[in-house]
Amino acid sequence: MVENGLIERLRSGDRRALARVISKIEDGSPETPEIISELYPSTGGAYSLGFTGPPGVGKSSLIGQLIKLYRREGLKIGVVSVDPSSPFSQGAILGDRIRLAEHFLDRGVYIRSMGSRGHLGGLAATSKLGALAMEAYGVDLVLYETVGVGQGEVEIASAADTVVVALQPGSGDAVQALKAGVMEVADIFCVNKADHPQARGTAAQVRSILEIGQELNPRPWVPPIVMTRGDSGEGVEELKEKIEEHRAFLEESGELKTRRRESLKGTVISWASSRLEEELQSRLSRENSELMNRVYSRELDPITAAERLLREVQ
Amino acid sequence: MVENGLIERLRSGDRRALARVISKIEDGSPETPEIISELYPSTGGAYSLGFTGPPGVGKSSLIGQLIKLYRREGLKIGVVSVDPSSPFSQGAILGDRIRLAEHFLDRGVYIRSMGSRGHLGGLAATSKLGALAMEAYGVDLVLYETVGVGQGEVEIASAADTVVVALQPGSGDAVQALKAGVMEVADIFCVNKADHPQARGTAAQVRSILEIGQELNPRPWVPPIVMTRGDSGEGVEELKEKIEEHRAFLEESGELKTRRRESLKGTVISWASSRLEEELQSRLSRENSELMNRVYSRELDPITAAERLLREVQ
Repeated sequence: MVENGLIERLRSGDRRALARVISKIEDGSPETPEIISELYPSTGGAYSLGFTGPPGVGKSSLIGQLIKLYRREGLKIGVVSVDPSSPFSQGAILGDRIRLAEHFLDRGVYIRSMGSRGHLGGLAATSKLGALAMEAYGVDLVLYETVGVGQGEVEIASAADTVVVALQPGSGDAVQALKAGVMEVADIFCVNKADHPQARGTAAQVRSILEIGQELNPRPWVPPIVMTRGDSGEGVEELKEKIEEHRAFLEESGELKTRRRESLKGTVISWASSRLEEELQSRLSRENSELMNRVYSRELDPITAAERLLREVQ
Repeated sequence: MVENGLIERLRSGDRRALARVISKIEDGSPETPEIISELYPSTGGAYSLGFTGPPGVGKSSLIGQLIKLYRREGLKIGVVSVDPSSPFSQGAILGDRIRLAEHFLDRGVYIRSMGSRGHLGGLAATSKLGALAMEAYGVDLVLYETVGVGQGEVEIASAADTVVVALQPGSGDAVQALKAGVMEVADIFCVNKADHPQARGTAAQVRSILEIGQELNPRPWVPPIVMTRGDSGEGVEELKEKIEEHRAFLEESGELKTRRRESLKGTVISWASSRLEEELQSRLSRENSELMNRVYSRELDPITAAERLLREVQ
């Protein structure tokens, strides 16, 4: 049973209760299902932003600047960072290096890095559940920060209402992003380090890729491209406006509901498949070393072995 | 049923047969189980190398140089590239830019990029199955190239016998790699762009992290650090020697058998969980929109919904 009053305290805005709840979720505590079932009715009110892009593009300073703007409006913000290279993930140690310290001390901002202890399916589920806990705690906005290289990490960011993809001038990032399937999930592009000599070229490259995409498959929302500077905050106001425009588009078109359903469906599936995978793992370790022996000796191929295992689980 | 004689032709070294078989595997053809069951007895002879590291570290040129050395000894080589930013993945288009063209034309080298069409569990399974097809075709060495940022991608490389982690001088890569769990899977570190002014510093940083690791948890194999240059080929001979030393260590210690069993176990589990996840997806789309409606309206939380779904599948 969940500790008496813990969810109540979380819901009334107790930071320590929130921290404990997220730790329990992250550690895969057996209380997790009960915790989620208790706090879930208080969720659904926050807007979510996904931020993704390659390491070194400056996502964290950009997010820092954006948080500053939202804080001025009095919004409470939760950050779920699943980028191992992010200073958010490294907490206060590197935080002050890029002036995040102010946010770490700000009671209206709750920053949490989620570790990749399990496999990615697990991480997708825990980061979403962590965000639900933040919602119940009372944040108005959840920011997911992920590194846009791995497919799994992209999936986490793309569960958000609005997805911002940050690109680095030069370095052929635009084309790389296209290959990795990141382009498809972007609602807004952000060419960071706008003072870089190749910034305009990168923006032009993205624009032409988007134009080709529009010709092949016209879509009602064409992702805008914003030039930003995470260091000086230049362009971040415009980024915020574009986020608001996208939100208005989602609400008017009814797309917001579709996205949120899809995102929740993803959470249901991630949880279910993590559970199944755990069960497969433990079966294969416990009873079926015999099965693996036969695979190892080439008597039985891995797919046939997997199908047998499935028949046992089902 | 699998096309008559296809596996036979693959086994006799027919490149087009190999290409067709891998495409079927990648497309998730219903023939896949039969294909694998037919070719599996001819596998198990090849040695495998995992190459991972952040984008831009120069993995591809390094692999190109290493292939050159192995080709001089007459070894047949298969490359499975799951790095979307790799020129290997972009095929011959960018290939000549970094002088890979010679390998693309070399009949003793088979290069194949595996797309991330499905989710990562799926990619882990298909890349391993693709490698099995290469083994049956007759390669002596399989090289997995992955980008070492996403957890899922690291898992793919770490299924290999020897794992090489390439790092970039400067840029705090060593620390980032540590965070991402990449350090733990490395058998050999390779500081590429050894002519970079910070190359020695990066090597020293890795060395001190390894020393701390050894003190906390002494292990019989301490990963060596090799300084290389993908452009000139400097240090690649030494890298190859270290790979051979590691192979000898694995064979003498009996660790090779353990690793290969684990890797096959991973393939069995990836296949089984992909299958289960597909089933969950289709159930949730077909019959259970009612279930998702209740999740969306906050009547039912996602974990309870997942548990109900699981009970139905099992």
